[in-house]
Amino acid sequence: MPSYSPRDFRPLTFHDAVPAFLAGRDTPRAYLERCLETIAEREPAVRAWVVMNEAGAREAADSAGARYRAGRPLSPIDGMPIGIKDLYETEDMPTQMGCEAFAGNWPKLDAPLVKALRQAGAVVLGKTVTTEMGMTHPGPTTNPFDPQRTPGGSSSGSAAVIGARMVPAAIGSQVMGSVIRPAAYCANHAIKVTFGALNRGTRQMMSHAAIGVHAGCHEDMWTVAAAIAARAGGDPGRPGLYGPETPPEPRRPTRLIVMETEGWPAMGPKAVAAFEALLQRLRDAGVEVLRRGDHPAIEAFERAVAGARDLSNDIVGWETRFQLEHLAQTAGNRISGRLAARMRAGCALTLEAYRWRLIERDAARAAHAALAPMADAIVAPACTGPAPPWRGDEPGRPPEPWPTGDVSCNTGTSILGCPAVTVPLAAVEGMPFGIQFVGQPHADAQTSAIAAWAAASLAPVVIQ
Amino acid sequence: MPSYSPRDFRPLTFHDAVPAFLAGRDTPRAYLERCLETIAEREPAVRAWVVMNEAGAREAADSAGARYRAGRPLSPIDGMPIGIKDLYETEDMPTQMGCEAFAGNWPKLDAPLVKALRQAGAVVLGKTVTTEMGMTHPGPTTNPFDPQRTPGGSSSGSAAVIGARMVPAAIGSQVMGSVIRPAAYCANHAIKVTFGALNRGTRQMMSHAAIGVHAGCHEDMWTVAAAIAARAGGDPGRPGLYGPETPPEPRRPTRLIVMETEGWPAMGPKAVAAFEALLQRLRDAGVEVLRRGDHPAIEAFERAVAGARDLSNDIVGWETRFQLEHLAQTAGNRISGRLAARMRAGCALTLEAYRWRLIERDAARAAHAALAPMADAIVAPACTGPAPPWRGDEPGRPPEPWPTGDVSCNTGTSILGCPAVTVPLAAVEGMPFGIQFVGQPHADAQTSAIAAWAAASLAPVVIQ
Repeated sequence: MPSYSPRDFRPLTFHDAVPAFLAGRDTPRAYLERCLETIAEREPAVRAWVVMNEAGAREAADSAGARYRAGRPLSPIDGMPIGIKDLYETEDMPTQMGCEAFAGNWPKLDAPLVKALRQAGAVVLGKTVTTEMGMTHPGPTTNPFDPQRTPGGSSSGSAAVIGARMVPAAIGSQVMGSVIRPAAYCANHAIKVTFGALNRGTRQMMSHAAIGVHAGCHEDMWTVAAAIAARAGGDPGRPGLYGPETPPEPRRPTRLIVMETEGWPAMGPKAVAAFEALLQRLRDAGVEVLRRGDHPAIEAFERAVAGARDLSNDIVGWETRFQLEHLAQTAGNRISGRLAARMRAGCALTLEAYRWRLIERDAARAAHAALAPMADAIVAPACTGPAPPWRGDEPGRPPEPWPTGDVSCNTGTSILGCPAVTVPLAAVEGMPFGIQFVGQPHADAQTSAIAAWAAASLAPVVIQ
Repeated sequence: MPSYSPRDFRPLTFHDAVPAFLAGRDTPRAYLERCLETIAEREPAVRAWVVMNEAGAREAADSAGARYRAGRPLSPIDGMPIGIKDLYETEDMPTQMGCEAFAGNWPKLDAPLVKALRQAGAVVLGKTVTTEMGMTHPGPTTNPFDPQRTPGGSSSGSAAVIGARMVPAAIGSQVMGSVIRPAAYCANHAIKVTFGALNRGTRQMMSHAAIGVHAGCHEDMWTVAAAIAARAGGDPGRPGLYGPETPPEPRRPTRLIVMETEGWPAMGPKAVAAFEALLQRLRDAGVEVLRRGDHPAIEAFERAVAGARDLSNDIVGWETRFQLEHLAQTAGNRISGRLAARMRAGCALTLEAYRWRLIERDAARAAHAALAPMADAIVAPACTGPAPPWRGDEPGRPPEPWPTGDVSCNTGTSILGCPAVTVPLAAVEGMPFGIQFVGQPHADAQTSAIAAWAAASLAPVVIQ
């Protein structure tokens, strides 16, 4: 029986190790070695890593150590061991995208965000498992709190390495629900940034995919994002992540709006009970909580995001169809049936249908913008419930459509292109259950500050 | 002495060959063979092609011929031989980007626009010369009207193949002045589309680069653009090119606004005389022409684009710096000094500086939008004068900064992300000199219709 407890779980953190590095009581190398010990212990069951460069990591950690000894770290994340979702290029390791067709693929360069992390002194330890091409077909990773369950996806490995305390931070990305959902299943603090706020490098083909940071705490989550932004900026034509280099101070909101999304009917009674208990904790802390019956603008917003999953499927389907079709034509025996089905759905779309979907997306964004003057942020479940069991497809049965869990609490914020931050404030059936705070585009720092306040101030909720 | 005459020059056109294909009096294969004969004759001096797939082209032309015989062409460009700027991937040919570091580079897939062209039945004949990485360092191509002069760039080969009557259309792209300027130097009809209106595939790293179509006439220019849009759409998140599958009917504008840009002071007296004569022709045709003294909004617009070249340099410099730095680090001896200097300038920028440049660009776009109710389009010189001489860098002297000509009539429309269409309506010193019509974003079809009217209705101007 899983027995995750938000009160007792002590995530691995980095920011609080830095004073010891500066004082000479600890070193980034020793920190890394502790990570490697945890990995040796947990990885056989969790299977979160595709490949690691331990020698390179040790060298980078030693360099960071020398900088701390000299009193001159490069940034707040100098020496931080970090995992990179295997969709982003690393000069020293292959980038295989969870897809057999890319086995051995090794572009010999760093994605801009990886380059920025190295420039900030971070120790790029390895590549974390992604679902195939970041879509629905799962990789081998298991949930660190129960090996019978999914860690979520597509950033499966990046969420699991945090839950397993293997490293203090990891990079993910989200186009449907690929950061916030796995993060919520694995007790992460995680942010999916405003669209375009962190540089996606060569992976620009999807018009609402955004980078995410998975971490054990608010502080590490923010400093990683800020360190990337300062050095690699955002996507072309975008102003990049706004906010300080150091974590924004926790801030209590005055008013929050509850977002239900199409995920609401899919939530079980225990998940609803956990979420409602957290709302009560917010009210008890003096936060006003508005719900969909309270104002027509909130109702209009809910209706605008109610079809987000299909909307996102169509937009992503059109945008990726040529790439997937090429893959099917050249490596059809090395892609999953799920990916092939995705390709066929995308190829069936027309430019006219895509244009309408973009207009619907714009309308949803307008409905979200209309809420800005009404509250400091949105609060919502980060997932429909705890991570579901996953033991693989059963031969002879049709493939499970969402093997890494239900994305429907997340596609709304994905299509909005706005920041979302999940915090691990609840347990349901002994498994992590996250609550997310959602801001207006470019309010990443403010949203993180509210999430940090909630994490620090609200008593966690446990529903057996 | 060059002796281009806009009255006598007969460009190669395709749309008027289609009736003969349908009637069985001509075939796409015979059309292609005529192209190949012209290429055999002109290519030794013009040097516009990097590589050709003649066998593949013959096969594609024969397939098109069978479709015409059956009375079922795939599109208005079925069977059209076309050149592809060597920045865009072609499954059957390498993509070397005018850069030694990419010698032999051969991604085995079609860029979306190439795939769309093939789906429409076009005959992808070969790759046309680009300046190095689409930036300033020139390739070997010469101007088809005078081998002592540049064809312009970066779409050097795509402009030259039209001027040399080798093929009826070619694909280019513009981030500074890379479509409209070479097109104007080489007597093309050419369009640089609205930002994002035609799919750039993997080349999304620049936030105001756009695809262009070079052709011998308005009709072929439009049908190529429309055929791509219908099949490959635009960039992710963009609605794609708006307009009919067939060329929009020529349309006389009621009122045009003259745009000077920072190119105005760089124009010689003969180029000014040619442009002023064309303005007089417009007035004689009943078109009202407004100039910068006529309205403060026009003056404000001119000021907003007056620094476009530096602005574009900074934006592109930041957006390409990681890619160029990687190239310099891994293949420093196989890139030009010009490209290395570009990389260093880009790496010297900061996110904060880039953000300010984006705000300036937004301001220029707002100044342009303010002109929308005042006129049907903008009219402007497409280049500062006829193509300048170019005989290569002289040893011991600093490299010429703009070896393919002065971009300053073009960076204004580049940063605006709006459509620009050049028509070959003048000769200066026996060389082509273009005039461009510039529309609001997404007014590609209307702008093309005005350009088509001008091309059909105004008597060309010749200044010796």
